[in-house]
Amino acid sequence: MTLINHLNWRYATKRMTGEQVPQEKIDYILEATRLSASSMGLQPYTVLVVEDKELRTQIQKVAYNQPQIVEASHLLIFAAWDKVTEADVDAYMQNIAEVRQIPVESLADFKGSLMNSVVNRTQEQQYEWAARQTYIALGTALAAAAEQGVDATPMEGFAPDALDELLNLKEKGLRSVTLMPIGYRNTEADFLATAKKVRREKEQLFVKLA
Amino acid sequence: MTLINHLNWRYATKRMTGEQVPQEKIDYILEATRLSASSMGLQPYTVLVVEDKELRTQIQKVAYNQPQIVEASHLLIFAAWDKVTEADVDAYMQNIAEVRQIPVESLADFKGSLMNSVVNRTQEQQYEWAARQTYIALGTALAAAAEQGVDATPMEGFAPDALDELLNLKEKGLRSVTLMPIGYRNTEADFLATAKKVRREKEQLFVKLA
Repeated sequence: MTLINHLNWRYATKRMTGEQVPQEKIDYILEATRLSASSMGLQPYTVLVVEDKELRTQIQKVAYNQPQIVEASHLLIFAAWDKVTEADVDAYMQNIAEVRQIPVESLADFKGSLMNSVVNRTQEQQYEWAARQTYIALGTALAAAAEQGVDATPMEGFAPDALDELLNLKEKGLRSVTLMPIGYRNTEADFLATAKKVRREKEQLFVKLA
Repeated sequence: MTLINHLNWRYATKRMTGEQVPQEKIDYILEATRLSASSMGLQPYTVLVVEDKELRTQIQKVAYNQPQIVEASHLLIFAAWDKVTEADVDAYMQNIAEVRQIPVESLADFKGSLMNSVVNRTQEQQYEWAARQTYIALGTALAAAAEQGVDATPMEGFAPDALDELLNLKEKGLRSVTLMPIGYRNTEADFLATAKKVRREKEQLFVKLA
């Protein structure tokens, strides 16, 4: 089975069965998420993992009561950093230096790039840049779930400010961007389970320039 | 080989060999990109495919002269729609109705959701929303390339306005968001080819809420 098979199998599941997803599959999805690309490798986000059903019931209330949030086994919340500081960049440089066993001073140019292109911008621009990166991780997590035969639903449909307040994310320097319930499709309840996948035709989506 | 193997194998390749990537592998990467998730399935972007080396040389000039752009075999440009109109939504509804053989009227509620959450916002918000979606496609394209044993580099390091002007994207209602050269790593010239991958530790990246 290839990525294309997995992408054809997956869909934005609207109803789930409530069945538990084994921890090893959750761990696999999280590890793939951790390995996702991000701009300059900073990974300027935190992924919150919610299993508790009571908490998911509260989250559901700020997410238009979408059933998957409680019918899932686990809920991921992709939350971007609300700003990117020099301290964040320094911690990253330290991590690189340790993993690669090189002097942190040798990373001065790279640090300069991050400072110029991200830190030296407005806080809202920093957040927006961080938010964009979470979508790469979301895309990777969706592919990983499908590979594991587990359903997942990418969701923007919730009230980010209300969720941030519920989970005290502001105090943690985070802003919620997307949700991803993980579980198993309820084929009987979900009319989309058997619906044909709709995508733009390749002749429209791709333009060969030369 | 699993997605996690592929993600561990890939890295943001800085130097490529110039070797041609077979068309079937390019087609595979594009098909995976086409199958990517996007919010409400709209896919509000175009992916430009550039093979011509002369044009890539011009693009390189507005991308800090990064060598991969010309050392690659192909260059993808992920360009978001600069706005999302009711006509765009209607075309999408028509596509769904045709693929699923259902009356377009049955999609009225779904159309309403897209109108409320996207079309009824400012043009800049529409663009930003579209730009975020391109990152899911970028993440999927990176995974697909790695699965094919082909290198690829996600790039934000270019001057979007200059690139948009070079390629007349404004007239096409597009704004360039990211680049992705596709080719083969030059292990001798690229010190990153043998460098250990650096990612945030899972204890930092993930927070279990309950």
